[in-house]
Amino acid sequence: MASVAGPEIERLIQLLARLPGLGPRSARRAALHLIKKRDALMTPLAGALQLAIDRVQVCKVCSNIDTQSPCTICTDARRDPTTIVVVADVADLWALERANAAPGKYHVLGGTLSPLDGVGPGDLTIDALVARAHEPEVTEIILALNATVDGQTTAHYITDLLQEANVKVTRLAHGVPVGGELDYLDEGTLSAAMRQRTLF
Amino acid sequence: MASVAGPEIERLIQLLARLPGLGPRSARRAALHLIKKRDALMTPLAGALQLAIDRVQVCKVCSNIDTQSPCTICTDARRDPTTIVVVADVADLWALERANAAPGKYHVLGGTLSPLDGVGPGDLTIDALVARAHEPEVTEIILALNATVDGQTTAHYITDLLQEANVKVTRLAHGVPVGGELDYLDEGTLSAAMRQRTLF
Ligand SMILES: [Zn+2]
Ligand SMILES: [Zn+2]
Repeated sequence: MASVAGPEIERLIQLLARLPGLGPRSARRAALHLIKKRDALMTPLAGALQLAIDRVQVCKVCSNIDTQSPCTICTDARRDPTTIVVVADVADLWALERANAAPGKYHVLGGTLSPLDGVGPGDLTIDALVARAHEPEVTEIILALNATVDGQTTAHYITDLLQEANVKVTRLAHGVPVGGELDYLDEGTLSAAMRQRTLF
Repeated sequence: MASVAGPEIERLIQLLARLPGLGPRSARRAALHLIKKRDALMTPLAGALQLAIDRVQVCKVCSNIDTQSPCTICTDARRDPTTIVVVADVADLWALERANAAPGKYHVLGGTLSPLDGVGPGDLTIDALVARAHEPEVTEIILALNATVDGQTTAHYITDLLQEANVKVTRLAHGVPVGGELDYLDEGTLSAAMRQRTLF
């Protein structure tokens, strides 16, 4: 292939193939699409990437990514400063924002504890979270972590660390997804949904 | 969303979502992945795109894309100059090259005739193909077009035009599944179809 389309195109395909969701075949299609849409897509994309390279940074307060630090959320005076929603990843923050589900500010851990993958507390922003939890205005830490073994291990670890902070530590409710069918739910979810049932 | 991550990141996501194979959700994941792999992936990708923007061009002979014109294939003295393999798209050329299935040079039509989509002969490189077919050294035109209605319509149209040229017109054997597209075929099928090409 390299000898056919030239090393530049081959390199572009290889880099595109490293994006999540694109395999070798779809990377080739994406490269061709870009080359065909040179002015309408390839040039704007190259520019957008360069702009992101130049401007995107990690928020020094919450570890969100933004083009400013502290980030737009940390500096938003309309957001409840007493509540911090803890997420593993910026993708989770984005998901909660799309759902308009978070009442306050955020804290992005940068992952979850995972002994098997060699991820320990020092690899996450846990120290910064503990420091924020000790700030006088903060009254609640909401752990919005995946309902997986690693997510719940991380939640327990953080909860223990926050014993001495004067905050309430909560986590997302388990339950039936909106639009979900009972017949397809696992037993753990069904049991939790039953225990945490609410008045209709 | 735009107010959360900043317009630069939102724009990057929107552009990534226009790549084939990436929807809005996978474009967000791709953008985050790029931002996290800033030095290892985002910067190289921006550079590869800019290099492609600067260097990729359409071959003036066969309409292949390459960083040189005439392209690497057109200038390759080891390739049989008597045979021209006609494909609709560069993706099909790449597929045949991966299968090492084409004996000679290529001609990229830039699509297939499609009255419903408003694609007529003037939108394709058919005139250039007819001119090449009249060159003395060319003895065979292999129509490697999709086994779809549009592909076969295009094959018939070209065959009629080439009646006056002193060439044999062949097409890929019916190892190609009816309704199938070349770019999705395995290499063995492509090779067999090339070997068993028949007189049109
Ligand atoms: Zn922040
Ligand atoms: Zn060429």
